[in-house]
Amino acid sequence: MVNPYFTFHDGVYTIINQQALPHIEEYIDLVSTDDYFDAIKTLKVRGAPAIGVCAAYGVVSSIWQLSSFSEARERASMAIEQLRHARPTAVNLFHALDKMTETVNDYAGNNMHDYRDNLLKQAQSIEQYEIMTCEKMSEYGIALIKPGMTILTHCNTGMLATPGIGTALGIIYKAYEQHRDIHVYVPETRPLLQGSRLTAFELEKAGIEYTLITDNMRGYLFSENRIDIVITGADRIAQNGDTANKIGTLESAVMAGHFHVPFYIAAPLSTFDFDIESGRDIHIEERSIDEVTHMGSHRISSAANAVNPAFDITPAHMIKGIITEKGIITPCRESISLLH
Amino acid sequence: MVNPYFTFHDGVYTIINQQALPHIEEYIDLVSTDDYFDAIKTLKVRGAPAIGVCAAYGVVSSIWQLSSFSEARERASMAIEQLRHARPTAVNLFHALDKMTETVNDYAGNNMHDYRDNLLKQAQSIEQYEIMTCEKMSEYGIALIKPGMTILTHCNTGMLATPGIGTALGIIYKAYEQHRDIHVYVPETRPLLQGSRLTAFELEKAGIEYTLITDNMRGYLFSENRIDIVITGADRIAQNGDTANKIGTLESAVMAGHFHVPFYIAAPLSTFDFDIESGRDIHIEERSIDEVTHMGSHRISSAANAVNPAFDITPAHMIKGIITEKGIITPCRESISLLH
Repeated sequence: MVNPYFTFHDGVYTIINQQALPHIEEYIDLVSTDDYFDAIKTLKVRGAPAIGVCAAYGVVSSIWQLSSFSEARERASMAIEQLRHARPTAVNLFHALDKMTETVNDYAGNNMHDYRDNLLKQAQSIEQYEIMTCEKMSEYGIALIKPGMTILTHCNTGMLATPGIGTALGIIYKAYEQHRDIHVYVPETRPLLQGSRLTAFELEKAGIEYTLITDNMRGYLFSENRIDIVITGADRIAQNGDTANKIGTLESAVMAGHFHVPFYIAAPLSTFDFDIESGRDIHIEERSIDEVTHMGSHRISSAANAVNPAFDITPAHMIKGIITEKGIITPCRESISLLH
Repeated sequence: MVNPYFTFHDGVYTIINQQALPHIEEYIDLVSTDDYFDAIKTLKVRGAPAIGVCAAYGVVSSIWQLSSFSEARERASMAIEQLRHARPTAVNLFHALDKMTETVNDYAGNNMHDYRDNLLKQAQSIEQYEIMTCEKMSEYGIALIKPGMTILTHCNTGMLATPGIGTALGIIYKAYEQHRDIHVYVPETRPLLQGSRLTAFELEKAGIEYTLITDNMRGYLFSENRIDIVITGADRIAQNGDTANKIGTLESAVMAGHFHVPFYIAAPLSTFDFDIESGRDIHIEERSIDEVTHMGSHRISSAANAVNPAFDITPAHMIKGIITEKGIITPCRESISLLH
């Protein structure tokens, strides 16, 4: 399975515009740092691993056409600085940009060609790492999926969220190769509908059986014993296993706990933030309330007051396991420190 | 406080078209039984108490212009039969139509004028009863609301859902008269957005502070200790206290339980179904999947598969109390049998 949605060629990163899905399958070229910044900020590209890789290529693009090494060095640093502010929660963005910074700083020569080559190789290495981790996670994760199982996921965590096959959805792709009778429940994931727009789109293409629901139908499905396992992705995981993920994830975890259904997170090590103690230290992005009062460009409420936190924090004790590329771990300080 | 949204005059029931809210404040006249059936089925009028009263006036309208008593008798029975199939879950509809049937059957004379007058009085009596119960419920309910409290509600349970001031929202209206600093969290209530379209509209008009959220933000608010009490309405309550209400209510109850926040239902006795044992016997209306794949007329997902249960069942043990016009009761078989 090859991810068809992201390609870097000759200084240009070509991505499917996720804002336009599912109505239009439109590819856009990112060239300038502003292009990249805008694509990440406005969710033309989203998903923690995909954001990190996109930002890394953004640094490469920023110097691609330059011939002066000193100018390139400055431009790369400026790009890193700008892209760092595109979104606040997914730690992959910062990890990727930290690696690009290292490459910038480590290069001791003054050859433009070598410098560019180093940055490109670093971006490719970040990308390859994310592709590999998706494969590895799916190999561990499929052990949890039995024939005929119904899986509740959240948001989008597939080939639109990573440069590989995905995190939670990657596991579902692989499980489907073994068990054709699995079934996926897809919450639409308001306000931006990554579930109904993106996950339903991916599952439809893959021929995997799924049912779209509104976010408030999860409790009903749990109460009818129609969910066997919950697997979602993550945007940032603290030292103690507390996990930030798309708003509504905590609700799935609370309900899974109440109805005795196992709740798993699928996330590569790049999603762990070993610098923070617990979920209390994770900054939750507060987005425009227009996303709540509108559906796309269509106003649906006359409300003047709303909030729009993009993520919530699921406490470690509510997570049965975190599926990583190193295996499935218990989310506690001891296990996580071993991964570092 | 007088409900401005429903009036019956000279055989015509004039209602605000809730489908068009909040964009257009449009009033429509219901005259034929088809008008009433369509208004209930397509949610131009919704809310369990409002549906019951609307159906009762529908029976009155069906004979208003007639001069032949025998024709009127037949027509009234036909209207009752048709309106019974408009929606399946809210028991108020059946209670109201049962009362109209009694009036039809009890009339032993053959005077058209008297017959019509009897039916009108019965419909008015059902309406007055609902107005009175809203007042009574609010008198009991305000004891639960302390100054500065934040209240999570669900769907719409105010003057658009009842002929009075409302059930859960009626309590909030009354509490606001005492405590100007209460704050209401309003989940948008997908798929039909009764929260963002109707409750936000009502609270805005009343000047009560509120915050609109998407349905999947409730867990986040609970986890931040931003919700002090949950009060929702009900569509049908079984003998044992199990309660059917708008899809997503069960989720609020599960989360309230998890986060140790009291969860209350506000419902008049007309919402109790003393004929059924438990929630298992409540028929959950399954509506068109277009409501999930669309937002109004706007298609938001390419998904071919979805479900659309309009209600869920909250088990009695998760409900701290049911606020009725007779007082706040513990939802158990013993208390409920005393109300019968």
